[in-house]
Amino acid sequence: MRHRLKDVAERAGVSVKTVSNVVNGYVHVRPDTRARVEEAIAELNYRPNLSARNLRKGRTGVIALAVPELDIPYFAELARHVVTAAGVHGWTVLVDQTGGGPEQERVAASGIGDHMIDGLIFSPLALTADDLTGLDGIPMVLLGERVDHGPADHVAVDNVAAAREVTAHLIGLGRRRIAAIGAQRTPEGASARLRLEGYRAALAAAGIGYDESLVAPASAWHRADGAAAMRQLLASGARPDAVFCFNDTLALGALRALHEARLRVPEDVAVAGFDDIEDGRFSVPTLSTVSPDKEAIARLAVELLAGRLAGERAAPARELSAPYRLELRESTEGPADA
Amino acid sequence: MRHRLKDVAERAGVSVKTVSNVVNGYVHVRPDTRARVEEAIAELNYRPNLSARNLRKGRTGVIALAVPELDIPYFAELARHVVTAAGVHGWTVLVDQTGGGPEQERVAASGIGDHMIDGLIFSPLALTADDLTGLDGIPMVLLGERVDHGPADHVAVDNVAAAREVTAHLIGLGRRRIAAIGAQRTPEGASARLRLEGYRAALAAAGIGYDESLVAPASAWHRADGAAAMRQLLASGARPDAVFCFNDTLALGALRALHEARLRVPEDVAVAGFDDIEDGRFSVPTLSTVSPDKEAIARLAVELLAGRLAGERAAPARELSAPYRLELRESTEGPADA
Repeated sequence: MRHRLKDVAERAGVSVKTVSNVVNGYVHVRPDTRARVEEAIAELNYRPNLSARNLRKGRTGVIALAVPELDIPYFAELARHVVTAAGVHGWTVLVDQTGGGPEQERVAASGIGDHMIDGLIFSPLALTADDLTGLDGIPMVLLGERVDHGPADHVAVDNVAAAREVTAHLIGLGRRRIAAIGAQRTPEGASARLRLEGYRAALAAAGIGYDESLVAPASAWHRADGAAAMRQLLASGARPDAVFCFNDTLALGALRALHEARLRVPEDVAVAGFDDIEDGRFSVPTLSTVSPDKEAIARLAVELLAGRLAGERAAPARELSAPYRLELRESTEGPADA
Repeated sequence: MRHRLKDVAERAGVSVKTVSNVVNGYVHVRPDTRARVEEAIAELNYRPNLSARNLRKGRTGVIALAVPELDIPYFAELARHVVTAAGVHGWTVLVDQTGGGPEQERVAASGIGDHMIDGLIFSPLALTADDLTGLDGIPMVLLGERVDHGPADHVAVDNVAAAREVTAHLIGLGRRRIAAIGAQRTPEGASARLRLEGYRAALAAAGIGYDESLVAPASAWHRADGAAAMRQLLASGARPDAVFCFNDTLALGALRALHEARLRVPEDVAVAGFDDIEDGRFSVPTLSTVSPDKEAIARLAVELLAGRLAGERAAPARELSAPYRLELRESTEGPADA
């Protein structure tokens, strides 16, 4: 059975007009009312029938999510949340894997094909605020650390604060030789820059000197890069007793390298990551990490985009911060039954 | 510097016409010549400028890859290979995560929006051959086990043979109580059915009786499902000495459950998976698995689609088989230095 607007309104205990306002992305809906409507939409698996309206407005009902790499699990998990959040508006989401290159990113930001997509949720690596300002693009919401205070709405977590907290957790375990894996000096490495800044701030606050021999670069952030960086740190004589990896895949690679070196985690070296991907909940040992609220990031991005599509195109660009928390597991805390 | 057709022809040592034939997907190109041209295209990072031709033909230059779930890493890795293979033809690939539901799969198979995509590479879960025959769809290539001998070209690996081989490998280690994790009785569970068939064939060939108490169902194939199924097998008193998991994420969950039960892998229980995702090359222990040639699957699918777009729309549907191999690692072979 296909549910109608009226069914959603009844279930949520609001008027049909209010449901319509939520589906259409109008901002003047109270947050608790919006939440109730979104819950009813999810429970009834309601999908707005938008084809007539889309035709009238010259819309396709399709948005794109452009990310650098789908085989970084963070982006695959984020994509699932964006698909769910976009379902509230009846949108189909197509995912564009840009590879982080400027040409493919420009194709995405220009709307991919003429009139193909209504809007874009975009995590750029190559393009800057200036590049995006110059484009005659489509309604867009930016994710990630590459561009902030740019020409479009932006959702991110506070990377400096999160990195500082997870480093402080390692210091709180009594560790003093805390390595960092994932440093990047390229302009694209904005996440790396902010996470390194948080790491340094935590060391400084604890009165621990910054030791460059403990900071390992990684041009890509896959498992192989983390394993290679960890092996190099161990071979260099830097003798770390903990390591903060700038994402979870780097950390999973580092765990493997520590296992091969017959070092115990966390007894010899404590390990923490960033992203809270599913892998780290099942690895041996399980991985302590910064857990950005991906569901909130996806929901905020979709709501901002819905607002722009509902006619707020001229409003100034907004900067929204999504919450995060530390997830402490075996790689820093040891096994639960030890 | 942007390379032209002529540069590719020079590098590959062929005529400009031959390069054009490859880019346009014509089938009458010798395989070794095609390979040389594709290599030259990759080396020069050549991207055909197709916008004028696309306009003339009413094309968008965009194809879709529709898969059930992006956070099954197999599909994320496959997506990367499809993007690379499609680059030879200058196509942009958009990924549609259908969730495996019939409504969203119908949207994909119908071309998503009017004239939005030129063609589709489609891994269906819900739709059958009959559903697809009834659709007034777009040029399409099917992947996976749900539909074969359907109305469209199809690329798959021989799941029965691959499952038989990996089970025979476990038998060859001297194991006799070999469990299977991932059985499904739903119509959507075509991969599960074929992999169970291969498992049973290997047992029969070795004269080992089929024991239903060793076969654990899993309605989804994520890590949590594999861990839960493994815990249940251990609690049931079935006492397996090996386990074949129908994909790698199930196997990684099973590894975690075995670790928590303080059982040694492979000494107490040997573990094998299916898919060869990157995770299994870095897990503790590393994971033995069936490795389907994802690069070949992607390339064959793109070439079949290019052929259809080049005018072979009336040719009968083709069934192509992609190669696979066993990747034997620590979870069945033990550590290299043991």
